[in-house]
Amino acid sequence: MIAVDWGTTALRGALLAADGTVLAEHAAPRGLLSVPPGGWGAAFEAEFGAWLAAHPGLVCLMAGMVGSRQGWAEAAYCRCPAGLADVAAQLCWVQPGRVAIVPGLCCEADGVPDVMRGEETQVFGALQALGLQVATLVLPGTHSKWVQVQGGRISHFSTHMTGECYALLRSQSILARMLPADDGAWVPEAFDAGVARAFDAGGLLHHLFSVRSLALFGRDDGPALASRLSGLLIGEELRAQALPAGAPVAVLGSPALAGRYQRALAQRGHPVTAVQADAGWMGLLAVARAAGLLAAPGPAEADALPAGTLRP
Amino acid sequence: MIAVDWGTTALRGALLAADGTVLAEHAAPRGLLSVPPGGWGAAFEAEFGAWLAAHPGLVCLMAGMVGSRQGWAEAAYCRCPAGLADVAAQLCWVQPGRVAIVPGLCCEADGVPDVMRGEETQVFGALQALGLQVATLVLPGTHSKWVQVQGGRISHFSTHMTGECYALLRSQSILARMLPADDGAWVPEAFDAGVARAFDAGGLLHHLFSVRSLALFGRDDGPALASRLSGLLIGEELRAQALPAGAPVAVLGSPALAGRYQRALAQRGHPVTAVQADAGWMGLLAVARAAGLLAAPGPAEADALPAGTLRP
Repeated sequence: MIAVDWGTTALRGALLAADGTVLAEHAAPRGLLSVPPGGWGAAFEAEFGAWLAAHPGLVCLMAGMVGSRQGWAEAAYCRCPAGLADVAAQLCWVQPGRVAIVPGLCCEADGVPDVMRGEETQVFGALQALGLQVATLVLPGTHSKWVQVQGGRISHFSTHMTGECYALLRSQSILARMLPADDGAWVPEAFDAGVARAFDAGGLLHHLFSVRSLALFGRDDGPALASRLSGLLIGEELRAQALPAGAPVAVLGSPALAGRYQRALAQRGHPVTAVQADAGWMGLLAVARAAGLLAAPGPAEADALPAGTLRP
Repeated sequence: MIAVDWGTTALRGALLAADGTVLAEHAAPRGLLSVPPGGWGAAFEAEFGAWLAAHPGLVCLMAGMVGSRQGWAEAAYCRCPAGLADVAAQLCWVQPGRVAIVPGLCCEADGVPDVMRGEETQVFGALQALGLQVATLVLPGTHSKWVQVQGGRISHFSTHMTGECYALLRSQSILARMLPADDGAWVPEAFDAGVARAFDAGGLLHHLFSVRSLALFGRDDGPALASRLSGLLIGEELRAQALPAGAPVAVLGSPALAGRYQRALAQRGHPVTAVQADAGWMGLLAVARAAGLLAAPGPAEADALPAGTLRP
């Protein structure tokens, strides 16, 4: 099958064997914003036409903002709790039998909805990789997602504007004057101090100001202040989870950012498992299987296939 | 005397009779950023020279960022707890006997310092206006200040980047797409919902995202979302105070912004007193008296003065 993660600014795809082996990968800076109205089919053919021509009958599943209102087609959100079967039952076919969009998820708490598009397939992939049915996962990023899994299904999740707030404060606020133009060396001790501070009384809007006041008194310099700011924001994200003591957390993401979350979680006494960011390919494969688009090969069957053979 | 509030972007001054009567006021967009190095004396003469020429021997006290490192002279912070006498004892004379800067305050909690410049004179003025020796005050703004007063002295305070974060999120974040170009009509119910939401579990970085998700589901429109965002941030500022139930709070500020804080505090069950934003003139007058720069006239004495007479 072909697995595609099509986001706002970029697109990534993988050609997968039925056993999940990645046969080829493809990435392009061709996000939603660069596709003209009515240009979705052409863009898709330009990026993945060669793979489909070489492997006729192959199915393609896409996840991410491609299914948003500004995307190829709006794939209605699947309501939580949602597992593989729920998502598979709600595929949005843009080319029937050939290309489908995996729906994002929505949930609601206290009358306020929350949404994700794309992260759900990464979570499903991570659950398979970890062999877990119950888990707490975090996907750090511009809009971090915290995900609760019960019985193999995503029961609830919440979005945190951590990465975006960091970028804004880092470059646009009064704090930017205190910080070097680029982050420079990460200062783990200053990051740790920021995480710890986030758990003190006073609130985020107050703690942020410490980046300025510490600089005013010459107690910290640029790189340390940038690391502290990062710790304050990630610490606030952790504080808001109110995680039970000792609760394990799986972190899915790029090594640099995931490493910061791992460090912050470890400081707070939580066992951490790191999951490769490309868990999404495994997740899309699992959705395809749940939708009956691929047979699930037993190990013997998979072994019997010549290397590189695709199961349509 | 002449009382001056000289800030980063603007300058305000008042010609005061010894009993506090405002005889004249003057404002100019001549903040710190517009004064060239070495140009402070000339800028001061250009703005206030006529008053001083008309009333020889008059003393001028200035508060605000004019006393910062980037200002006329760096006035060392006065450490909390600090009252009128402490501040008066630490005046920074830039023209001996004629023009002095009132020092800002600093305090420290858990190894993290905090600072203010200018708000302290507003607080002293408000305490006189309210006749209070013990109080909790808030000065809303770009960097809101919460101030604790014990025995007539400022015992502790904390800065919150509420106004700045609102402006950044309002105009620069992904939420800006959901919001009208200008705030439009304020929607009190949406503001109230934001304040209430800030006290729910989940944390500010999560609650902010509700501005987007509510818009995605068409549950709120532009002006309501802007009011909700304002409520979320002001609510978070209140939440972080952990005010005792029923504790009274004095709000010092411009009517529009102070009105939002009054409404949020009332929702949380706190009796509110509003204080005029120009309490600063009374505060500077009180500092001048505490410094022995003005005699404190009894009512009879003040009555005996011809209107407009200045006491040097």
